[in-house]
Amino acid sequence: MSLKESLKQQQQALLAALDAGQRERLDTLLPELRSADIAEIIEDILDEEDDLPVALELLHCLPLERRANVLTYLPDEEQLDIAESMSDSGLLSVLEEMGSDERADLFNLLGEDRRQLLLRRMARHEREDLKRLASYEEGTAGAIMTADYVAIPVGLTVSQAMMRVRQTAPDAETVYQLYIIDHEGRLAGTMSLRQLMVAPPGARIDALMIKDVISMVVTAPQEEVARVVARYDLLALPVVDAEQKLVGIVTHDDAMDVAESEATEDIHKGMSIGQLEGGVSRVPLWSLYRKRVTWLVLLVFANLFSGAGIAYFEETIAAQVALVFFLPLLIGSGGNAGAQAATLMVRGMATGDVGIKDWGKLLGRELLVAGSLGLTMALAVAPIGVMRGGEAVAMVVAMSMVIIVLFGSLLGMCLPFLLDRLGWDPATASAPLVTTLIDASGVLIYFSIATAVLTGL
Amino acid sequence: MSLKESLKQQQQALLAALDAGQRERLDTLLPELRSADIAEIIEDILDEEDDLPVALELLHCLPLERRANVLTYLPDEEQLDIAESMSDSGLLSVLEEMGSDERADLFNLLGEDRRQLLLRRMARHEREDLKRLASYEEGTAGAIMTADYVAIPVGLTVSQAMMRVRQTAPDAETVYQLYIIDHEGRLAGTMSLRQLMVAPPGARIDALMIKDVISMVVTAPQEEVARVVARYDLLALPVVDAEQKLVGIVTHDDAMDVAESEATEDIHKGMSIGQLEGGVSRVPLWSLYRKRVTWLVLLVFANLFSGAGIAYFEETIAAQVALVFFLPLLIGSGGNAGAQAATLMVRGMATGDVGIKDWGKLLGRELLVAGSLGLTMALAVAPIGVMRGGEAVAMVVAMSMVIIVLFGSLLGMCLPFLLDRLGWDPATASAPLVTTLIDASGVLIYFSIATAVLTGL
Repeated sequence: MSLKESLKQQQQALLAALDAGQRERLDTLLPELRSADIAEIIEDILDEEDDLPVALELLHCLPLERRANVLTYLPDEEQLDIAESMSDSGLLSVLEEMGSDERADLFNLLGEDRRQLLLRRMARHEREDLKRLASYEEGTAGAIMTADYVAIPVGLTVSQAMMRVRQTAPDAETVYQLYIIDHEGRLAGTMSLRQLMVAPPGARIDALMIKDVISMVVTAPQEEVARVVARYDLLALPVVDAEQKLVGIVTHDDAMDVAESEATEDIHKGMSIGQLEGGVSRVPLWSLYRKRVTWLVLLVFANLFSGAGIAYFEETIAAQVALVFFLPLLIGSGGNAGAQAATLMVRGMATGDVGIKDWGKLLGRELLVAGSLGLTMALAVAPIGVMRGGEAVAMVVAMSMVIIVLFGSLLGMCLPFLLDRLGWDPATASAPLVTTLIDASGVLIYFSIATAVLTGL
Repeated sequence: MSLKESLKQQQQALLAALDAGQRERLDTLLPELRSADIAEIIEDILDEEDDLPVALELLHCLPLERRANVLTYLPDEEQLDIAESMSDSGLLSVLEEMGSDERADLFNLLGEDRRQLLLRRMARHEREDLKRLASYEEGTAGAIMTADYVAIPVGLTVSQAMMRVRQTAPDAETVYQLYIIDHEGRLAGTMSLRQLMVAPPGARIDALMIKDVISMVVTAPQEEVARVVARYDLLALPVVDAEQKLVGIVTHDDAMDVAESEATEDIHKGMSIGQLEGGVSRVPLWSLYRKRVTWLVLLVFANLFSGAGIAYFEETIAAQVALVFFLPLLIGSGGNAGAQAATLMVRGMATGDVGIKDWGKLLGRELLVAGSLGLTMALAVAPIGVMRGGEAVAMVVAMSMVIIVLFGSLLGMCLPFLLDRLGWDPATASAPLVTTLIDASGVLIYFSIATAVLTGL
């Protein structure tokens, strides 16, 4: 049985027990399920049946630590719904069980009044910690880091450090990478638990640690964090403030989540869709509309340039209506080739494979590839040109195809670099924008060639 | 100084020392650089200057273990170039230093003759291990897993297990997650090193381990592996054969690499670009051409349907050439909205956010959103219709806009589900395919409405 099938079975059994109110059966089923899977069930209950009381009932069958853990796997909206229906003391105890990063995230979802109420009931150092972590801007290293790391003061021996690890183990997000800090709290070095385990117990940490630590500042963008974690195969990345003081770590699993959501954002941006908060099946309709409409309407107006081009050539068209036959094909083909070129650049820039310095070289490559693509497509379309309008039309269409595909591809390739140069996100060079620009240019190219050739003959 | 800037400085210093032949300076610089960064320098040398001897010289300044490590960070093509210029014994010693997964990857790049030669010079168990790991199909769990994990036989005590960990530490890819196997080698349980460290030394592992281990079979697709690692926040995922025997693990860093390359593949597929082996700036031109041309030419022919539609309505067009003004705008807008809808579904399905079962619900949502989008865009374009061709044309254009955007969005939304149902990859519903289909339908919708309204008046 595959992982997916067994998961489905477990979920169905759980839902059946829940429906029948078999509390005892729930108590045997729940420990077998993983937090991510319970969260999925709760999501479904909230999402498809909109049944908050049942979701809460299920949550309350879980021990407190588990309950907190399940909550962290839920999307923001669902977390908020549940948090809002909890009593202050209930919410406080759940918050206490969470990792410091997830606690700050949930806290940030709450309304100002509730936040003040909760803060007042916390111990002072807890309050300070939470306020600090909750204050980092979304999308930065600070907002995704956790404060639950193992910090070892310089000067300890291996066996002293090992003792520290054991003491911190229950609370730390990871104990497998240790961070050594100096007397001012600055990051001085790092050491893996593996290294610590095989080191002589009496040796001093300072002599063994790696001093040249890869770290990032708290204001660094989260996609940068994910990229560095991936590049250097890190288990966790330490985050420092402007004074090089260690303030948190980002663990590999959080970096992976960031990488996934950044990829989704890039894919959506590639179609001119704004950033969605949550999955497409759950995000409110109004927000989905808003994230799609802006560019669609902007592009309607941009498309008027195509219309203007056509209006300009109205005489040519009226004289030879057969030309319209090839219009969607030519501008469509140019748009497709251009969108491909743009996408290759935007993704290359996002993964770090393509840099500004590669521009010249890539332009040369695109010239060759797009030229060949245009020629191939011209060859494919030429016989149809002959059939529809004779040799002159075929020549016009084939010539237009080569030039439109070549021009479109070069435009698609250069646009991301240009946008980047202007300080914009290169991903703004989306397929809809590129195809719209090529539509307008394609109209001009096609009918200019047609006017020249057909009038000349 | 940011990570990027300091990296650039280090690289420049290294290249300068290399150019000047300052061997001693190289020996002080190299230990300060990380393997991933040295690999990038070598890539640049091979790529921009095509200077294999210099790259080899740099590699030979590194101690053997480091050299093997740097090699694993290089793209396939570069690894192969270097491996081919190495002597058999040189290559063998490098292979021995690699992790078992990377060894198998490099081995698979070599020609058949070279492989046989190398195998003959290996010890028997090494040979068997390598042959087994190299035999798994690309894109499966088997192809990305490593055999260097910590396996603990059932029945050991905590302190005995700890001893095993220490013994295996130098060779294992990770020592932080232990896998407990029974007498037949089947996966019986798992335990984290953290749990082991705080457990009483005399306790038996069997009593402490988690028996319900998340694992995958060796033939599972690699994107599935990446998704499970991300979903359950795993440090490593054990891989078993058909008899549940443990054969390897996939570590979090390899899962993250898979997730990144899968995202890139999906983004490219979204523009009908085939799977590229390597980055866009390095892949051979011929291959880049091939990966783009297939769909482009196919879509040229699909676009003929738009032409056929136009030919069918030639009379209407000839009678009212002003209609052509709005053609690119209408089919372009429908294509943009449809490509958005398709992309939202394809990405949702790839991340597991959208499943087949959500189809009905999503259809209803898309109906509402696309209807609103169509209305908004119709309102935007109506005044221009009045200006260009009077109220009748404005009505035709506005009506066409609503229907084309609605139809296009629903088509774009449904196509990925349909493809999935037919056993195809939903990502085949690329922006170019969707816009081409909508071009043809848009022509029919627009001119049908135009014929009906304008002939009727």
